[in-house]
Order: sequence, then structure tokens, then C-alpha cells
Amino acid sequence: MTRILAAVLLALTIGFTVWVNNALAETLRGSGDLGVVVERTAGAILIVDQSERAAIGRVTGLGDLSHASVVFSPDQRYAFVFGRDGGLSKVDLLKQTLVGRVLQSGNAIGGAISDDGRLVAVSNYEPGGVRVFDAETLDMVADIPTGSKTIGLVDAPGRQFVFTLWDHGETWIADLSKGTPEITKIEGIGENPYDALITADGRRYIAGLFGEDGLTALDLWQSPPAPRRILAGYGRGEAPLPVYKMPHLEGWALAGERFVLPAVGRHEVLWVDARSLEETGRTKTHGQPVFAVARPDGRQVWVNFAHPLNDTVQVIDTPSGEVIHSLKPGPAVLHMEFTPRGHEVWVSVRDAGRIDIYDTRSFEKLGEIAAETPSGIFFTARAHRTGL
Amino acid sequence: MTRILAAVLLALTIGFTVWVNNALAETLRGSGDLGVVVERTAGAILIVDQSERAAIGRVTGLGDLSHASVVFSPDQRYAFVFGRDGGLSKVDLLKQTLVGRVLQSGNAIGGAISDDGRLVAVSNYEPGGVRVFDAETLDMVADIPTGSKTIGLVDAPGRQFVFTLWDHGETWIADLSKGTPEITKIEGIGENPYDALITADGRRYIAGLFGEDGLTALDLWQSPPAPRRILAGYGRGEAPLPVYKMPHLEGWALAGERFVLPAVGRHEVLWVDARSLEETGRTKTHGQPVFAVARPDGRQVWVNFAHPLNDTVQVIDTPSGEVIHSLKPGPAVLHMEFTPRGHEVWVSVRDAGRIDIYDTRSFEKLGEIAAETPSGIFFTARAHRTGL
Repeated sequence: MTRILAAVLLALTIGFTVWVNNALAETLRGSGDLGVVVERTAGAILIVDQSERAAIGRVTGLGDLSHASVVFSPDQRYAFVFGRDGGLSKVDLLKQTLVGRVLQSGNAIGGAISDDGRLVAVSNYEPGGVRVFDAETLDMVADIPTGSKTIGLVDAPGRQFVFTLWDHGETWIADLSKGTPEITKIEGIGENPYDALITADGRRYIAGLFGEDGLTALDLWQSPPAPRRILAGYGRGEAPLPVYKMPHLEGWALAGERFVLPAVGRHEVLWVDARSLEETGRTKTHGQPVFAVARPDGRQVWVNFAHPLNDTVQVIDTPSGEVIHSLKPGPAVLHMEFTPRGHEVWVSVRDAGRIDIYDTRSFEKLGEIAAETPSGIFFTARAHRTGL
Repeated sequence: MTRILAAVLLALTIGFTVWVNNALAETLRGSGDLGVVVERTAGAILIVDQSERAAIGRVTGLGDLSHASVVFSPDQRYAFVFGRDGGLSKVDLLKQTLVGRVLQSGNAIGGAISDDGRLVAVSNYEPGGVRVFDAETLDMVADIPTGSKTIGLVDAPGRQFVFTLWDHGETWIADLSKGTPEITKIEGIGENPYDALITADGRRYIAGLFGEDGLTALDLWQSPPAPRRILAGYGRGEAPLPVYKMPHLEGWALAGERFVLPAVGRHEVLWVDARSLEETGRTKTHGQPVFAVARPDGRQVWVNFAHPLNDTVQVIDTPSGEVIHSLKPGPAVLHMEFTPRGHEVWVSVRDAGRIDIYDTRSFEKLGEIAAETPSGIFFTARAHRTGL
């Protein structure tokens, strides 16, 4: 009898211990103030908590995370990580585990999630085209070959994805609202579009051109949208730059009534009227800007810079267009992410192995988090925005 | 020995059972797709899950919930419910429990949460003024008497709250960034302001006037902001209406480059240029509009109506300004809430005891949820927006 009881007791104790461990790993918490930091050379992400200003976990085994980007499920529980090696990884932020991974191509550049959160799309260099996956299972549900490197993939309202063909100068709109993709092809985008963005309201899609000056804008409220050339002076200029020197267009930010964007190859940001898409002015900056990010209320724009001036961040006041503050977080500032309502900004300082956290009004440093070669910072509030 | 083992076994079994029960009650889930529905006459809220299109819990004991409104903590775990009776209740959406409640005045009208999520403010009719509470503990941290009924309380960037005095025609800006409130008072708002709104970028604060026609706009980027009268024809007109017939200004919505707002006492919505704040046109509607809500991408505006035409909802196409669809969900449509990226809209049909869920593109009805006299619907994505 004693032996039986002891055996039962042992079994129960083991079961109990498993429960306790699970309970600790799976702390009940809201997911609205979480985020991830890409640890570029480690193939890992740090899971961070904005309210605690701390890392709360780490998930490894995500492959090549150079140029990685991240989108989130509508419940803000799952992160989808797009690696350069064509890997699409699904991470559970609450359990802090890798729950799925597919190597969907040889070489990929970014992805997007549909407005209903059911579909995840990936843009591929090799073999080119776009592949669409079920967000729940990561099963492929659509394969859209384009015969070209595909860039500038974004989600648009109505279960649509929009992307552009580097080789053919075409933008395609894939409507998946009925299951099978219905494709609208728009020609005449220009020579070698290298990146694109969609505005936060999902209305305007703007592609940057590597092969010529200027950009091409589409009004997605038109049917079909007609390409319109804008900002004729914007681009590579007389002396062509390598593609990797062209600014990422995701840096376009709406500040008040103007977009602000990094100039190409110059120590300036440009101001562009949000309605006419015409240039209204420029602000001189410390270096060649990489990202010009507006605080969510648009009242300030924070700018980081290309090597070798990438230890510095400048803050521009939107109404006056003047630089009102400069700070030097440290070597290789790669990315900046605002808390959703803009009271703080998180800055990745790659070569210092650190995330710095600043108050956006007092510019006081509020905290820091150790990270291995941190690059992109992505907060879960992105789940509820178009084109992020 | 056997007895000791048996006692230990019993204790462990009880402990184990408690763990299992807690684990079931506290299902691990993301909080980004949750929401609450106010059950007006039951003093309760339903907790809903957008992805499941279902109610997942109910919390009672929240007092008088006529004219109730709700804000959310940044982690989207906690809902703060403002009742008409001055009650401020804090609900844990994950544990589905009431975790705190203060009866902070005799008669209140709405509240707001600071951009950092640390402070919750309530606007009071009786005794008037604004009280500010610690969001964690619900301890009062500031009492701002105004000597007037206080209306139009909103949060603004920088740990600020903005509100307006019905009796004195003043708007006050309370800056709590340094702990103690610093108050800026702006006179000359007009006669008997009855409600106000702040635009989504936190820049413009607009007050409606009961005592005269027109509205008053403040540009909060100015220091101090100077009141500016706009929309001279907008208001009570020659035949004064009772206050309860004046439209809620929170219904202002940005659709493309225009705000759309319910006309006062007429079967129309007004279109107002978002920059100049001048009227640019009107659209005739089925009844007197109560809420005119833009889909998050601004491409459509959904409108509900005052009694006795309140069984109907109309959908207006933004570019053309034309009504493109009408539907009759049922008796007493009180509120509409879009999913954060606009693919669905949830509609409360009070007298049918139902929430209806529609696809915003096909207008197909996707589901319904039973609720007791449902009024306001609030999704947790509001946590990341200014002025909601």
C-alpha cells in the first residue's frame, strides 16, 4: 500500500512540476505592448515588453536574418519573420516558441499579412514572384510567378497584396478575397523599380526607380489605377548609386500635412505635400538619412544616417522643419520604433549590442536592453496598421 | 507512514485541481483581437473575440452604463469602463474579472487614458471638473475642479488631457508630464460647448456649441492655441434643439482628405476639408445621422440614424459621396465598430439583443452574437490610438 501510494505521489509530483513549469513559461499577459528585436547575426529574435522596458524571452533558429522584417497576427500573439534566405518563421510570443517554419524560396525580400490576418505573402528574388501562405498552418495557398525579381510587397485593404516587378516595370494587384488570386497588372511603372510603399490609409502606392529619376505613384482608389510620375528630381541623379545605397521607401512618414522622406545620396530630408505629392522643401541633416520616421502624432521626425555617420540621430520639428535635437546613441544606429502613441522611441545600436529607450519629449534616456547585433525593432501594434 | 503519505497526496491533489481550474479560466490568448460590448441595462460588459466572432465572457456589477465609454491599457489586457453614475471600473479581459472600482463622482461623462497608459482621467458633471487616477491602483493622483460641468475630455500626446467647461466656454489643457497638473486655460471657446473631439493625430481639438451656431477649433501645435470659429452654419439653427439631440462629435471621421460629420437635426452628413475645416459638400441620408464612421482606410462611411429611423444603416462611398448600400440590421442600431484594418464592421442592434457582423466589401452578414441591450462596442486596438 505504501509503495503504491509512493508511486502515485511521485507521478503526481512530476505532473505537478510540469504544470508549474508550463505556467511559468506561459505567464498570462496582454500582447498589446510586446515587440520583437531582430538579432541579425544570431538568427534570433528577442521578445520585448514595452511597459517593462525589458526583454522577456528569445527565440532562435530563424535562419539568415539580414534584411529581416516582421508582421503580426491580429491577436498580436504570433510574429511572422521573413528572412533573407527565403525562410518564413512563425513565433508564438506568449509561449516564446517557434511554432512553424518553411523555407519557401532561395532568396526573399519581405512579406505582408492580409487585413483579415488569414494570409501571409512573401516576395521573392529567387525564383521571383510571390507566394501566399495560410497564416494558421503555413501551408501554401497561392503561388504567383512573375518572371522577375519581385519587390515592394505590401498588403492593401480587401485581402489584397500589391507588389512590383524589377525587370518589367509593372505593378500587380493580387485580390485574394475570393480565394484564387485575381491579378490586375499595371504597366509603365518605370525602369527598375527597387522598392515601394503604401500609405497608412492604403490608398497610395509609390515605387522608387533605380533606372531613372523620380518615383511613380498609383491611386488604388482608381480602377484601374493610372501610373503618375512624381518628384522628377528625386532619384539616383547623374552619378548612379549602387542599389544598396538607395533609401528604403518604407521610411516615408506622414508628418502633419506632409510626407518626409530621405533624399538619395544627399545630407537632406525632403518634404512632400501629402495631397499633391509635390516637393515643398528640404531640411539639411547631419548625414545621408536612412530612415526618417514620424512620431505617431507627426509633430517630430527622427532621422538616422548611413555609415560612417551612423552613430547619430537627429530630431526635426515638423511645423518649422528645423533640427531641434541631436543625440549620439552609439555605433551603428540601425532602426527606430515608436511606442504606438509616441511617448517613447526605441533605438537599436547594433555595434554597442544595445537597444536604447528615449522619452520623445524630454529626450531623456529611460532605459536600455542588451541585444546581439540588434537591427529591426517591431512592436505588435503594427498588426492593426496597413502596410507595416 | 501511510497516513502521512495519504495526507500529502490529498494536499497535492487539491493543489493540482486548483492549478487546472486556473489554467482553464486563464486561457493563454493574445489580447489584440479582443473587445467589449456594453450591456446598457444590465450594468455588464460582454468580452468578445474578433477572430472567433464570439462572446468569450461577461463581467457584471459595473453600475449605470447608460452613456458608458471604455478605454484600454497599452497591453490591451485591461478595460477601464466609465459609467454615468461616476463609476470607474477596471476589468481584466484575460481573467474576465472586475479588478477595481471607484465611485469617483455623482455623475460623470466619459474618460480618457494618457499616452503612456499610466493615468486615467474622468470628466464630471456633478460636482464638475476632472479627476485623474493611477491606472494601476485606481488611486486618485490629481483633482482638477473647474467650477463647471466638464465635457469633451480627451487625451493628447505628452501625458496631456484636454477638456472644456460648459458654463464658462473655456478649454483647459492639463499637462501631467511632470506629475502635478500644469493647466493652460483658453478662453473664448463659445457659448455652452456641449461636446468635443480630438483628431487622430492629436493636433486639432474641436468643440461643438449648444448656445450658438458653428464650432470652435484649436490647433494644439500652437502655443497657446488660438480659438478659431469654423462651419458657421453648423449647429442648432433657428429652432434650438434639446442637448440630447445634438450629435456626438466623436462621430467625426477622416475619410480621404475630408472629415465627415452628422448634420444637426437634418437628414444629411457634411463633408469638411481636413485642412481648411471648410464645408465642401453634403450627402442626403435616410434619417438624422447619429454616427458617421469611416472605415479605417477612409474609403467608406457607415451611418446610423436617430429614432424612429434607427433600424437602418447606410454606406457612403467616399470619393463620390454617394450612398452605395443600405441595410436594415433591426430595431435600434446604436453603434458600429470596425475591425482595426476595416475588413469587418460590428453593429449593435439594441432591441434585437444582438451584435451583427458584416463583411465591409460584400456586405454579407458573417455572424451574430447575443447580447442584452447592447450599446457601445469597443475593440482593444483603441489602446494604440489617440483620442479614442
